[in-house]
Amino acid sequence: MALTGVTRPGHVQLKMVDLEAGIRFYRDVLGLEETGRDAAGRVYFKTWDERDHSSVILRQADEAGLDFFGFKVLDEATLDQLEKDLQAYGVETQRKPKGDLLETGERVQFKIPSGHTIELYATKTQVDAPYGQQDPKPYTAASDRGIAPIRLDHALLYGPNVDKVLDLFTNVLGFHLTEYVTLPNSDEKGALWLACSNKAHDIAFVGHPEPGRLHHVSFLLDSWDRVLRAADIMALNGVPVDIGPTRHGITRGGTIYAWDPSGNRFETFMGGSAPYPDWKPIRWTWEGLGEGGGLDVAHRKLHDTFLTVVT
Amino acid sequence: MALTGVTRPGHVQLKMVDLEAGIRFYRDVLGLEETGRDAAGRVYFKTWDERDHSSVILRQADEAGLDFFGFKVLDEATLDQLEKDLQAYGVETQRKPKGDLLETGERVQFKIPSGHTIELYATKTQVDAPYGQQDPKPYTAASDRGIAPIRLDHALLYGPNVDKVLDLFTNVLGFHLTEYVTLPNSDEKGALWLACSNKAHDIAFVGHPEPGRLHHVSFLLDSWDRVLRAADIMALNGVPVDIGPTRHGITRGGTIYAWDPSGNRFETFMGGSAPYPDWKPIRWTWEGLGEGGGLDVAHRKLHDTFLTVVT
Amino acid sequence: MALTGVTRPGHVQLKMVDLEAGIRFYRDVLGLEETGRDAAGRVYFKTWDERDHSSVILRQADEAGLDFFGFKVLDEATLDQLEKDLQAYGVETQRKPKGDLLETGERVQFKIPSGHTIELYATKTQVDAPYGQQDPKPYTAASDRGIAPIRLDHALLYGPNVDKVLDLFTNVLGFHLTEYVTLPNSDEKGALWLACSNKAHDIAFVGHPEPGRLHHVSFLLDSWDRVLRAADIMALNGVPVDIGPTRHGITRGGTIYAWDPSGNRFETFMGGSAPYPDWKPIRWTWEGLGEGGGLDVAHRKLHDTFLTVVT
Amino acid sequence: MALTGVTRPGHVQLKMVDLEAGIRFYRDVLGLEETGRDAAGRVYFKTWDERDHSSVILRQADEAGLDFFGFKVLDEATLDQLEKDLQAYGVETQRKPKGDLLETGERVQFKIPSGHTIELYATKTQVDAPYGQQDPKPYTAASDRGIAPIRLDHALLYGPNVDKVLDLFTNVLGFHLTEYVTLPNSDEKGALWLACSNKAHDIAFVGHPEPGRLHHVSFLLDSWDRVLRAADIMALNGVPVDIGPTRHGITRGGTIYAWDPSGNRFETFMGGSAPYPDWKPIRWTWEGLGEGGGLDVAHRKLHDTFLTVVT
Repeated sequence: MALTGVTRPGHVQLKMVDLEAGIRFYRDVLGLEETGRDAAGRVYFKTWDERDHSSVILRQADEAGLDFFGFKVLDEATLDQLEKDLQAYGVETQRKPKGDLLETGERVQFKIPSGHTIELYATKTQVDAPYGQQDPKPYTAASDRGIAPIRLDHALLYGPNVDKVLDLFTNVLGFHLTEYVTLPNSDEKGALWLACSNKAHDIAFVGHPEPGRLHHVSFLLDSWDRVLRAADIMALNGVPVDIGPTRHGITRGGTIYAWDPSGNRFETFMGGSAPYPDWKPIRWTWEGLGEGGGLDVAHRKLHDTFLTVVT
Repeated sequence: MALTGVTRPGHVQLKMVDLEAGIRFYRDVLGLEETGRDAAGRVYFKTWDERDHSSVILRQADEAGLDFFGFKVLDEATLDQLEKDLQAYGVETQRKPKGDLLETGERVQFKIPSGHTIELYATKTQVDAPYGQQDPKPYTAASDRGIAPIRLDHALLYGPNVDKVLDLFTNVLGFHLTEYVTLPNSDEKGALWLACSNKAHDIAFVGHPEPGRLHHVSFLLDSWDRVLRAADIMALNGVPVDIGPTRHGITRGGTIYAWDPSGNRFETFMGGSAPYPDWKPIRWTWEGLGEGGGLDVAHRKLHDTFLTVVT
Repeated sequence: MALTGVTRPGHVQLKMVDLEAGIRFYRDVLGLEETGRDAAGRVYFKTWDERDHSSVILRQADEAGLDFFGFKVLDEATLDQLEKDLQAYGVETQRKPKGDLLETGERVQFKIPSGHTIELYATKTQVDAPYGQQDPKPYTAASDRGIAPIRLDHALLYGPNVDKVLDLFTNVLGFHLTEYVTLPNSDEKGALWLACSNKAHDIAFVGHPEPGRLHHVSFLLDSWDRVLRAADIMALNGVPVDIGPTRHGITRGGTIYAWDPSGNRFETFMGGSAPYPDWKPIRWTWEGLGEGGGLDVAHRKLHDTFLTVVT
Repeated sequence: MALTGVTRPGHVQLKMVDLEAGIRFYRDVLGLEETGRDAAGRVYFKTWDERDHSSVILRQADEAGLDFFGFKVLDEATLDQLEKDLQAYGVETQRKPKGDLLETGERVQFKIPSGHTIELYATKTQVDAPYGQQDPKPYTAASDRGIAPIRLDHALLYGPNVDKVLDLFTNVLGFHLTEYVTLPNSDEKGALWLACSNKAHDIAFVGHPEPGRLHHVSFLLDSWDRVLRAADIMALNGVPVDIGPTRHGITRGGTIYAWDPSGNRFETFMGGSAPYPDWKPIRWTWEGLGEGGGLDVAHRKLHDTFLTVVT
């Protein structure tokens, strides 16, 4: 199989300081479909076009932030092998039982050097295409309910030990580096964009003194027109916006950064390049990240919030 | 590595009944960059955003059509393994020497049951990003030279033995089936969309009595706006158009089918779904292909040319 | 006042062979808002962004077609003056009383040499902007209900005496000619695009032996992306499509021609040039209309239905 | 004639502190066509799609800013009448001779209460459509040269006496008010959007203590995709950007505000509503201008530069 190992971002569990406000936002403004609630009070969502039971899980908490980010792997044998590979690499792993997350099989959870909890799993109940598995039409009512992203696309995480994260993701988990930022006057990498597919990125990291921080969770839109529509819907609903609409020089994708009601940043993203593992990663200098448009092609500056506001 | 085995469509060699007209078309109208000519008189091209030396190769011939379609594999070890796997499966393979194609390593060539020549290779000279490897800008003059596709995206091939092709591509080459069409009143597959990535397809096949036929080679555009711009540029240059602008129900991509000066069909394509190997393939009935909008969402009919005009 | 006289297409009354099917189509598929029903059984609609009470009026009839096409003029004094000008020109006019159409003032109705009934009126109850008159947001739920056009944009009418229609519209009603088609091997005009604004056209005519025929009523969309969305929604609802998505060379607008349930053609239109009265009209030869892309830039042919299917 | 009186923004004369840098910017980055230079050293430009000789005129000066903004009127009789109307209203006018501006007839120049010099003219040498007057194609090479706007669209001017400007433009020059902003806790108008067409605006004013200031000159683009392309081209050329890409709540248009090399702000604009003279103007409160998204739908704040940076 050409696509093996880790196939994609599968789910993210987010902490809500006001769960009800979070539910309203993710369901009515972002336009996700609520797919279940569990005994622990967690609420599950998926985008209209995703085929797995859920991709976003919300829970009530005292502060905002990320509980864990999960990747779906090809199958259970792959899960077993990656668990062994992680352990052999020196990473402590923990099996979460089947059903601990609704409609989800066993998960292998572990902490990475940046302080984040990552998990792998192979099994989640699948649903039919939103328009059916036979002779589907490309449009359904769900296509325009709220911002209506296509899928959970990636996350950007902040924490220490970016070099160790790079080693773990490329040498154990099979990701490849697509773009990176070097620290001022240095060849040391300060930020990483990593893919397990031919997307511009499936996960990204920025070096940060505090471990385990979330910069943003990203949702894919179809077009730059849909990014403007997202801005319109954010305005209608009073969603605070951080950056954009603009293009990132890094990944070349169109973007808006904004905040959910708990203060977790999310992104509505479109486009982006489609690099392959054999492509030379693009290097961004620290100046390139800011004045060079790596973060914001239109404004070519390093917005303060980019480096300082995380949950 | 999560992306392994066959990574992507790499190059296509096309037969031109008028090579000079073909060069003018692929260079000036489609807007590819000419990257070399070899002793055999072949002319090499790449899109502005591709990182390998070449993706389209033209040669003078007595009739139009496809010489071969080549996939790039991860590395030379993968090439060796896939060669062995093909032989073990009973496919006769032939090594083409390094340099037989400009700036390209050894290629493993073989015939598939549909009568097409497919080849695999691991090595092709890489070039920098069009805008440079450090602090690039997203736009260059090349971004708007002609239709200016981003990449060679896929091909649709016509020939017999679709069921055997499916077995070979999924069980030996590691592709997964994303969508398929069944024959009238039958569960037998008459057409296949296959991917080695999370694209909607990297290669597709339609059952056809004549072996080795080319339906179209497809080039990726950024947006539906760029598809309209492609139509405008086709009009300016008198390029005959077959179908579109429209959306395919199959793959959900935006499209124009048109013909190069030798009569080889090409596609300017955008969007499309992004299925994963674990997604259930979408089934299209024969009626779904036509009246159901599988081919043409706007017109929902089976255009005659779709089944009859190939090279 | 710089915008005087006839300001815009205001309303169209269409004949439905199945009124209920028509209501469902214009309301649920095209996405107009139903604004009233009158004693005669007529049903009134407006687009989400129009400020007048109604722009589309449907009535039950034995056959499809156009009852009349109405233009809103600046004010009642203008209406009186234009009535006198028409009469002085030799056109018989008829006053329709206030309230004959819901929420509409007196209308001056007359037949033009192509056999169509045109009417002028100055008064129609106005409504607030869909999002309010103060500090509005650009998006409302109505923005995405069905195809959701912005406005009734223009109509294309078929009938005899195109030269006389041109004289009447330019010399009495104050329109200017923006583009025209000449008959084969002739300087005689066979088709006219006329504007009373800086739109590409507010009304158009094609010469035809039968008087009073409707080719299509056109509705404006925001973008080419919205034209594709319209195609998707047409597919979802089984709306038969005639031509497009494509660009018209004439007007440069993006288009789909399709048919309502009674067989009246409608258009979903975007873009288009913005000529002024002092611009030289663009001339299209008969070949230019077809092979030159005047009708269809992508396909550059004179579709049979364009000249033959009218209601 | 339905379009009478003042028909449109015709030309703007801008002061350049570095004329050569200005020429390079307007020609190579914005992508205007240079159409002439006069004995006074002024350099003339037009967009690819305009039909008059020139719309942007640059001259060397000690400081940046606006010399005058000119409107084209329907014909010489209209010019004479408007001159009389202005004088009767108490405005002093001055005739500039034919040929004082290249290829331009006599101009009637006058100062308005905001301190700006406005002029009217009826005659300017017209050129053919860029793609020809017969059977044109919608695309030419010029369509993609630089940012490549379609036309000079409008200007926003800053100065005192907004109420008197409103009276002059609506009661003498025939414009209608489309939207306005009221001052904090007041019904007094602090900003005006005025149209002589069915555009969202042909000229706009914001109250400001200094007379005769330029906020920006705006150029129309086809689509939101073209606005992103403009941002990309600005990045490639180091053009400093003020605000955007975003949508204005006022006018509903997509926008980027940026600065030319002399510090004059310009806008690349798309879309926008199409109000008519009988529509009720939209009112924006002062909070609506800022937090309500009147200026910036995405960010909903009153950027400092909007009120303070003018030339």
